[in-house]
Amino acid sequence: MDQDLARVARRLMERLDALTAFTDDPPRLTRLFLSPAHRRAAAQYIAWAREAGLEARIDPVGNIRARYEGREAGAKALMIGSHIDTVRDAGRYDGALGALAALAVVETLAARGRRLDVAIEIVAFGDEEGVRFPRTMTGSRALAGVNEPSALEQKDAAGVRMRDALIAFGGAPDRLAAARADGVAAFVELHIEQGPVLEAEGRPLGVVNAINGATRLSAIVYGAAGHAGASPMNLRHDALAAAAEMILAIETRARAEIERDLVATVGRLDVEGGAVNVIPGKVRFSIDVRSPRDEWRRRAVAEMAAAMEAIAARRGVAVELTPTHEAAAYACDLKIIAGFEAAVASLGLEPRVLPSGAGHDTMIMGQRWPAGMLFVRCKGGVSHNPAESISGEDCAIALAALTRFVEDFRAP
Amino acid sequence: MDQDLARVARRLMERLDALTAFTDDPPRLTRLFLSPAHRRAAAQYIAWAREAGLEARIDPVGNIRARYEGREAGAKALMIGSHIDTVRDAGRYDGALGALAALAVVETLAARGRRLDVAIEIVAFGDEEGVRFPRTMTGSRALAGVNEPSALEQKDAAGVRMRDALIAFGGAPDRLAAARADGVAAFVELHIEQGPVLEAEGRPLGVVNAINGATRLSAIVYGAAGHAGASPMNLRHDALAAAAEMILAIETRARAEIERDLVATVGRLDVEGGAVNVIPGKVRFSIDVRSPRDEWRRRAVAEMAAAMEAIAARRGVAVELTPTHEAAAYACDLKIIAGFEAAVASLGLEPRVLPSGAGHDTMIMGQRWPAGMLFVRCKGGVSHNPAESISGEDCAIALAALTRFVEDFRAP
Repeated sequence: MDQDLARVARRLMERLDALTAFTDDPPRLTRLFLSPAHRRAAAQYIAWAREAGLEARIDPVGNIRARYEGREAGAKALMIGSHIDTVRDAGRYDGALGALAALAVVETLAARGRRLDVAIEIVAFGDEEGVRFPRTMTGSRALAGVNEPSALEQKDAAGVRMRDALIAFGGAPDRLAAARADGVAAFVELHIEQGPVLEAEGRPLGVVNAINGATRLSAIVYGAAGHAGASPMNLRHDALAAAAEMILAIETRARAEIERDLVATVGRLDVEGGAVNVIPGKVRFSIDVRSPRDEWRRRAVAEMAAAMEAIAARRGVAVELTPTHEAAAYACDLKIIAGFEAAVASLGLEPRVLPSGAGHDTMIMGQRWPAGMLFVRCKGGVSHNPAESISGEDCAIALAALTRFVEDFRAP
Repeated sequence: MDQDLARVARRLMERLDALTAFTDDPPRLTRLFLSPAHRRAAAQYIAWAREAGLEARIDPVGNIRARYEGREAGAKALMIGSHIDTVRDAGRYDGALGALAALAVVETLAARGRRLDVAIEIVAFGDEEGVRFPRTMTGSRALAGVNEPSALEQKDAAGVRMRDALIAFGGAPDRLAAARADGVAAFVELHIEQGPVLEAEGRPLGVVNAINGATRLSAIVYGAAGHAGASPMNLRHDALAAAAEMILAIETRARAEIERDLVATVGRLDVEGGAVNVIPGKVRFSIDVRSPRDEWRRRAVAEMAAAMEAIAARRGVAVELTPTHEAAAYACDLKIIAGFEAAVASLGLEPRVLPSGAGHDTMIMGQRWPAGMLFVRCKGGVSHNPAESISGEDCAIALAALTRFVEDFRAP
């Protein structure tokens, strides 16, 4: 690895540490969209961009944007970026890594004195996590031109309208349409994996082929409550035992690998009026199914529902399933996937292609432009937590791969 | 059935209805130990006993007691009774049925002009449900002479000491030892089943062979929390999926009928920090195992624990089991079981022997005297609920069987 790139990577890690100072809730890291901490973090980002010779600015919807011209002024741009807002009590890498890596790529190119056929546009989105307002990804939606103006009227928990928070932040809600990007060739995003696959396989990098679609369901099992001592096993209609069998059926179906990379999770379960000496009469639980392909997900959900119905019928209980959320999968651009694979291979690493289980701005940007993502492994697969961690070495490898991808990128 | 007995049974049902007027929480039926409603109910019971020619009294510990002499004054007594306290929002049959049936038996004998070789002692216990004070069955413990004087110092939720409540009720805490019964040949109790067995088999009566012992455990499963989208199935250590498998293992073991009448229940389950998009990292649940035989229960619990450990090991999670409650089974007296079987058979019914899943004063009385119970079927197996119900016909059959048992009883 060349010395310039190693130095830039070290600085990137230092900046990720430094950005933790911008929090609304010290000593925890909490940087919600358009908050004072977000504003101070944006000012710091703009200062760093200026040091790199870039004129960065806040766009009408609160994104930070900057442009590094190509060989010819006005060329189409490869847009690179991620978000700088966080969840509450967050880690320092989710989002910020990709937002600062975009700047680091430009610094590396500048240090090498390189101008490309394409310009580089940097973006640091402000609203990826969706913690403050009900709707989310306002920033990438505005760039892609798919924002709904009504989003500006949303209120946070304190009753503050997004429109007013945006004005205080330095945005321009009345010029939202001006945030729409043009002349963009593609969008790419570097992000921590937020899962354990790369660590388990000993790989620093992963190339994302899809952002999983999701179906969420609420299940209610209606059995018959009864006295735990006085009801023999063969006369019971135990809602929790039935739910347990359903949970295992859901897990077994997802584990069967009939569909590659399908996952299913029961994350919540409540026993109504649960007591140690009462046979459960009513149990409620959540189901979350995700897959890189919508048709796989729909088929798996239908088969899980059928299995649950069969279990309910055999046990003499009833099950009621209500869909609560549905999101389509986003298939990353094939040329971008191939470009990241080549960049990873150029570092002597075997490319590992995997889906993203979490949502990202990439899936919004992908609605208008070719888009894709590069993942870097994180410790224990942990994210949305102060324990979130990546190594400095992996950061340098990720930066090298992203820079190589950018250098080799050809606008379609 | 003779007309006297039918009339007495009808009056018994009317008195069960009338007793619902004595509640601390109208229109719900709530009659806690030593409460104003308990006191008024006791006064009504004593008045009914007087109509039957009996001098009933409140004993030092708050039980109602009365004696119907045998052919010879001072003969050993067969003691019959149950309790007149209730849970909150109770049904009208749990306890009161047996307490009033004892009086009805004496009324039937008196109507027939019969005196037996034994005296009949009637008791209406006041503290079976254990709702008001932490410890329970104070009344039967005092009769059997196994009470601990420290029980008097217990306080209810309002801070009232049992000792003071007892004085206000008409008891005599300082003469607790005088409540100890002597000259008792045996104790029997009529009670609603509180379970669905008799109804399912179309039988009005059941003869209790044992009051089940119980083991309660608290189980904690420690897995690894993770992102529901980003963790592939094969890298998960899902605490809820593991708990689901354990719940089914517990159910399967109990259903296998390796031990007759063993039951096991998981009544509570909590997913720590449960969220629809988070793989559960920690799950806590309760286990309640009951059996008419202590050695069966201990063996089943040990094998369930081993099965849970094996599931945990296979899934890479940990399980921690903590015993929270242990109660020995009470085996009913074999001669009393035989006596009830003969009484049931004398009515042209096939005797059905079954254990009691719930605890009763009988298991305390049984520590000192031969004891046993007769069950009458209840609608849907429901108890501790206003929906608790028995039919007038079953009440008459139960009264006939109990009366027959008493008439045929021979002191050992």
